[in-house]
Amino acid sequence: MSTFGFIEYNDASPEVRAVYDDIMATRKTDSISNFWNAIAHDPELLKRTWEDTKQIMAPGALDAVVKELIYVAVSVTNGCPYCVAAHTVSARKKGMSDEMFHEMMSVVGMANENNRLVNGYQVEIDEQFKTPLK
Amino acid sequence: MSTFGFIEYNDASPEVRAVYDDIMATRKTDSISNFWNAIAHDPELLKRTWEDTKQIMAPGALDAVVKELIYVAVSVTNGCPYCVAAHTVSARKKGMSDEMFHEMMSVVGMANENNRLVNGYQVEIDEQFKTPLK
Amino acid sequence: MSTFGFIEYNDASPEVRAVYDDIMATRKTDSISNFWNAIAHDPELLKRTWEDTKQIMAPGALDAVVKELIYVAVSVTNGCPYCVAAHTVSARKKGMSDEMFHEMMSVVGMANENNRLVNGYQVEIDEQFKTPLK
Amino acid sequence: MSTFGFIEYNDASPEVRAVYDDIMATRKTDSISNFWNAIAHDPELLKRTWEDTKQIMAPGALDAVVKELIYVAVSVTNGCPYCVAAHTVSARKKGMSDEMFHEMMSVVGMANENNRLVNGYQVEIDEQFKTPLK
Amino acid sequence: MSTFGFIEYNDASPEVRAVYDDIMATRKTDSISNFWNAIAHDPELLKRTWEDTKQIMAPGALDAVVKELIYVAVSVTNGCPYCVAAHTVSARKKGMSDEMFHEMMSVVGMANENNRLVNGYQVEIDEQFKTPLK
Amino acid sequence: MSTFGFIEYNDASPEVRAVYDDIMATRKTDSISNFWNAIAHDPELLKRTWEDTKQIMAPGALDAVVKELIYVAVSVTNGCPYCVAAHTVSARKKGMSDEMFHEMMSVVGMANENNRLVNGYQVEIDEQFKTPLK
Repeated sequence: MSTFGFIEYNDASPEVRAVYDDIMATRKTDSISNFWNAIAHDPELLKRTWEDTKQIMAPGALDAVVKELIYVAVSVTNGCPYCVAAHTVSARKKGMSDEMFHEMMSVVGMANENNRLVNGYQVEIDEQFKTPLK
Repeated sequence: MSTFGFIEYNDASPEVRAVYDDIMATRKTDSISNFWNAIAHDPELLKRTWEDTKQIMAPGALDAVVKELIYVAVSVTNGCPYCVAAHTVSARKKGMSDEMFHEMMSVVGMANENNRLVNGYQVEIDEQFKTPLK
Repeated sequence: MSTFGFIEYNDASPEVRAVYDDIMATRKTDSISNFWNAIAHDPELLKRTWEDTKQIMAPGALDAVVKELIYVAVSVTNGCPYCVAAHTVSARKKGMSDEMFHEMMSVVGMANENNRLVNGYQVEIDEQFKTPLK
Repeated sequence: MSTFGFIEYNDASPEVRAVYDDIMATRKTDSISNFWNAIAHDPELLKRTWEDTKQIMAPGALDAVVKELIYVAVSVTNGCPYCVAAHTVSARKKGMSDEMFHEMMSVVGMANENNRLVNGYQVEIDEQFKTPLK
Repeated sequence: MSTFGFIEYNDASPEVRAVYDDIMATRKTDSISNFWNAIAHDPELLKRTWEDTKQIMAPGALDAVVKELIYVAVSVTNGCPYCVAAHTVSARKKGMSDEMFHEMMSVVGMANENNRLVNGYQVEIDEQFKTPLK
Repeated sequence: MSTFGFIEYNDASPEVRAVYDDIMATRKTDSISNFWNAIAHDPELLKRTWEDTKQIMAPGALDAVVKELIYVAVSVTNGCPYCVAAHTVSARKKGMSDEMFHEMMSVVGMANENNRLVNGYQVEIDEQFKTPLK
């Protein structure tokens, strides 16, 4: 299911195919996941989203696997089943061990809990946390 | 401000002081932040939260700084100003560079965006993402 | 599936039937969607929710289709699959083009991203944004 | 306040200044709001965010004011005080009347309520809402 | 601060005053809180919101204090500082003890944590939880 | 489905079995729900989560059924289908009537709505709500 159905490679415009080709080349795979097939109904969105993803998820000061773990942490917090499923697999491909997953999940669980403790106990920000980072 | 005000060290019960002492010893500091002073009104909550924090945030398969980054990512997603301020400072103390912060934030921004694209385009989970990790 | 099952027209009390009749008359349809059949277990909730919906979603200073788009935008942000599916169909019936859907989704994606950039970079509100609207 | 402080025009690199210049020219103003001054610490993020904003918020199948209303609706749902304040002012500048604001808010309130009724009464999606839009 | 400023009693229309009068009579107080003064710019919204609040928050199968605790739990989860502050005070007036507050908060913290464990470990619903309540 | 599959009693380590045994004894049942079977892949998480649950959900200043209602209210607000399904059944077992469920849901719906009215009308906290509870 998808709002407008999926656009398969063979039915895609040249513009959409170019993005699909780049996805497959970058990821060294010959299939395109449902996410891209669904948003391809808006070729501009497809292109922008893919280019941003490619740039942002590439290794930099943070390892690629750390970036995937952060992505999963956000998706778990928001409750997006597709995103959790897809990026847990991506994280695995990029080297996530079981132990790394478990530790990430414990942090996510506790942060979600503590965020609410702060809200409920109405904790004011300490002066020491207000100075900009140097 | 805090729902019940803050419990300072000098006014704390021995039970609460023991937790404060462990926080200061573990973090090598001589002050207690507002969060702990606010939840100390429920000594059981204080104890449980501190013990969980101490265990979960310690380095393991993930570095301490990666854990702090994940904590910030969750807090940013939920919109908890106190938590973002406090844990950005913690992350810095544990070695977060400016570049690491920026990369984390770009992933968080994009994940929040893509989570909604998935919701709005109603993307069904691919079969390949449904198999349990091995 | 539904917490208490569905209350079909033929099994409904006169009070519930009156609401069902008004829904079908207002929407020019002869069926009632699962949402109403599920909340009919609380007849007061059913009546209040339908009356509010009828009043709020009617065209006013905003077109009916714009109201549906805003409804979908909220549902996408919260991650409510039922609500996204149902109101995307409603928006279509009220004149939403593919292009309108795509543009709404791009705004929703970006707003969700930028909301988090603001949270993470801890941006203080500009004085110019604090004056009440005239 | 901001995580790294603000980058003012006079202290900005040529790369950042170019974005600031384009913001001021596009918006016909001579000041830059805190959001841009805060994220300018990551020039790539600044550039990408501005270019996306400029493209996405421009009038298309949806009016510019409708796009701003959708942006506010998302920010209200997420609870981002800065974003609500800034984009309510933007919406006003693009023609939002008091009445439009009130109607948008009533839809946002009701959608947030109904999203939870659906979650709590565990309402299954009707078959009629599962067919892709034609 | 408020988007349109506050409408004080003396400046209110008869329609708005009638709601203010009912709020003060029902709550046995002679002041109106900022929430009502802010939404009074939309008299229909004011009237609908007050009537719903009055009806929904009245004691029924659940005590008034339990309803306030549930209200606070939702507001804490969403992160609405105004709502947490106002309804914590309301709960207190209706009989909430410190102990009740602490227990509510521990449940809220744990539920927020466990919701994410479920999301992250992608736990499928047990058959035994799918049968409608009898 | 679950990220790592389920750990059944017969395949569990002694450490995991001890937790399973305590769950079954405490709840007077001979089965373990999917949640525990899924998180058992991290035995420390399983143990900590179960011990916290057991302690926090036990009757105290609040009845066990009130605690379950608060748990459901949070899960409904966050949109966690598993959690809503499981804890609605738990609440029923602990004495929740239909009427109690309906009243809880009306509060949850309204609180979610009003939280957003506060966000959108940018309502400042009244001085009277800022004093710590005595």
